[in-house]
Amino acid sequence: MTVREATGVGHRAAIVGAGHTRFGAVPEGPRALVRSAVEGALASVDRGCDRSSVDRGYLATLGFGGWQIGNSSAVLAEELGSPGLPTVRVENACASGGFAVQEAVRAVSSGGCDLALVVGLEKMTDVTSARRRYWLGVSGDTEWERQAGLTFAGVYGLIASQYLARFSVPREALAEVAVKAHENGALNPNAHFQKRVSREQVLSSPKVADPLGLYDCCPVTDGAAAVLVASTEAARRFTDTPVFVDGTGAASDYLAVQERPDLLGFPASRRAASAAYRAAGCSPEELSLVEAHDCFTIAELLALEDLGVAARGKAGELTLSGATRRDGRLPVNPDGGLKAKGHPIGATGVSQVYEIFQQLRGAAGARQVRVAGKAVAHNVGGAGATAAVTVFSVG
Amino acid sequence: MTVREATGVGHRAAIVGAGHTRFGAVPEGPRALVRSAVEGALASVDRGCDRSSVDRGYLATLGFGGWQIGNSSAVLAEELGSPGLPTVRVENACASGGFAVQEAVRAVSSGGCDLALVVGLEKMTDVTSARRRYWLGVSGDTEWERQAGLTFAGVYGLIASQYLARFSVPREALAEVAVKAHENGALNPNAHFQKRVSREQVLSSPKVADPLGLYDCCPVTDGAAAVLVASTEAARRFTDTPVFVDGTGAASDYLAVQERPDLLGFPASRRAASAAYRAAGCSPEELSLVEAHDCFTIAELLALEDLGVAARGKAGELTLSGATRRDGRLPVNPDGGLKAKGHPIGATGVSQVYEIFQQLRGAAGARQVRVAGKAVAHNVGGAGATAAVTVFSVG
Repeated sequence: MTVREATGVGHRAAIVGAGHTRFGAVPEGPRALVRSAVEGALASVDRGCDRSSVDRGYLATLGFGGWQIGNSSAVLAEELGSPGLPTVRVENACASGGFAVQEAVRAVSSGGCDLALVVGLEKMTDVTSARRRYWLGVSGDTEWERQAGLTFAGVYGLIASQYLARFSVPREALAEVAVKAHENGALNPNAHFQKRVSREQVLSSPKVADPLGLYDCCPVTDGAAAVLVASTEAARRFTDTPVFVDGTGAASDYLAVQERPDLLGFPASRRAASAAYRAAGCSPEELSLVEAHDCFTIAELLALEDLGVAARGKAGELTLSGATRRDGRLPVNPDGGLKAKGHPIGATGVSQVYEIFQQLRGAAGARQVRVAGKAVAHNVGGAGATAAVTVFSVG
Repeated sequence: MTVREATGVGHRAAIVGAGHTRFGAVPEGPRALVRSAVEGALASVDRGCDRSSVDRGYLATLGFGGWQIGNSSAVLAEELGSPGLPTVRVENACASGGFAVQEAVRAVSSGGCDLALVVGLEKMTDVTSARRRYWLGVSGDTEWERQAGLTFAGVYGLIASQYLARFSVPREALAEVAVKAHENGALNPNAHFQKRVSREQVLSSPKVADPLGLYDCCPVTDGAAAVLVASTEAARRFTDTPVFVDGTGAASDYLAVQERPDLLGFPASRRAASAAYRAAGCSPEELSLVEAHDCFTIAELLALEDLGVAARGKAGELTLSGATRRDGRLPVNPDGGLKAKGHPIGATGVSQVYEIFQQLRGAAGARQVRVAGKAVAHNVGGAGATAAVTVFSVG
């Protein structure tokens, strides 16, 4: 297989606007969340952007059935106020958002569209928990793992156990991921959790799947995020400071983790990162900001290694050194990540691009980090069965 | 809104292979169906095609939850034998397949991929009927129509009533759509129904939603179809007779039909067709083959008018004249259409492209029609809330 990705020969793509709802257990229903994210994205465009400028829409959502709306991409057109717009729903479990952004990039690169709107959405809290468990559960392997009782927390617990043992990493490294996430979330007005936690609180939190405790797990969250992807030609109409898409990469893997050689990383993430760096013509050393898929604390350590910013088995050390904090050498998830900002499934990959848009433009407010290079968004579906990695820059 | 579509500035796309399972109530599970369609597509490539040549995969499926596999695009990579392949699930209800083909065309046009595999799949018969009704039902409008008791057959029954009355079209015109579909299906070894029916049988079949009877409705069907989409540069490696994608168009509409001005056609189909013809630089007069979305007999009449091949209110007359039969002036659904071939939701839009690939290459066997121009595939999601139209030719 040729793992080849590119931003396209026709047109380079750029982000020119981004919107974000409050993440949390919020009263708004799915339509209101979509509308709010879309309005935010349109309003964020420097020189203004009318909904009539949007050529194409992508909706990323797992859907849950909870809101009982099928053919749901049409809702995006309705809430944009443009019934008639071509819209597509993209669903790759927890990586739906990252993949939808990449489809929009391709639409722009192909020359078939000047401005694409990508909305990620999940309404998780007004669904019965049985239904939610089902929908989340089937995003892992059903045939050999879920029906044998293995939950997502269970998979990541197994991964964490093996990882800590194999690389002699202290449990505190996982806790430090959560501490950092909550520190960042406390500065993000859109985050689900806006409170700090101590390392001791994390370590003593109730066990969910040994060694992971409650504070090692992302919450159940409602929310939506939206980004506007333009061709660079069109981008000039909208802003002097677009955020360019330098490269995209994606990959899949066996659904069942038991079919993989080990649990110490996700081959799909590695392939996706490698393809994205190749397309962007960069190396991991050129990154100055990482948005990583930290659905569990252990997932952030795997991500850092799979993205090539930490050597194998060394992401714990990097994290404990403080390098991934907002004031560190390579800030990771300054928005609080899935862990503290929340993980509304379809919204997550789009929310990562929202954060990169703010940070690379110096508009992230209290949580602003110093950026002097490229940024990467890393979005994982299931337990590593799909992964999308995208590299951005202002250059 | 700019309804603008194109096959892309970078590369033109072409179909170089296609595979198809038997459609029907078949014993195979979803994985076997995917595998069979994929193997068929690879084996169909004139100069051979190894799975390692595939750069990217798209899976179109509504999913139903019946097979309990989420993150399902990874299954496509597994069954192709290429875990690691970038894969994406596209879901736009009954138009999932048509939209997935267009995403693949964009991937190729953008220059990011040489050969994309699109698989459409639905396993409908081993799902509880309650679950199936739910999944199908939510593809229409839930908030104002489904929960008030309006089913899909009900919507199309209302449309048929209004259409027949407004345009003084005889009920026999609907019946003739079914008679033609079954005549064609009888020659298609992959069709769900391979038997002819008489006009009298259709007219006297049990009422489902007045005026529509049982023989006016497509069946509940399992099946999968696959096509290989290549850049024209790559296509030359695979075949001397690719089928080119001349233009793509898509659009959405309000989910609820009550929000539309009338029930006499689908504005989304009209917009999608208009965009596709513009991209292809052609007019409806240049078509010599139509694959239309005939989920109910009335839907084929709407499709012919929305596609511009019949004047408003005149599709019944056209059908009764025999012009849409295999030996007519403009053959429509020579494969039997959704009505007789069956309508495995996610597979339908891909199956249409399979048929066009066979017909334009003169490889359709007993059901071969005379083709001397372009062919169009028309795929509708829900009751016209999403629509994808794609124009093909061998030129």
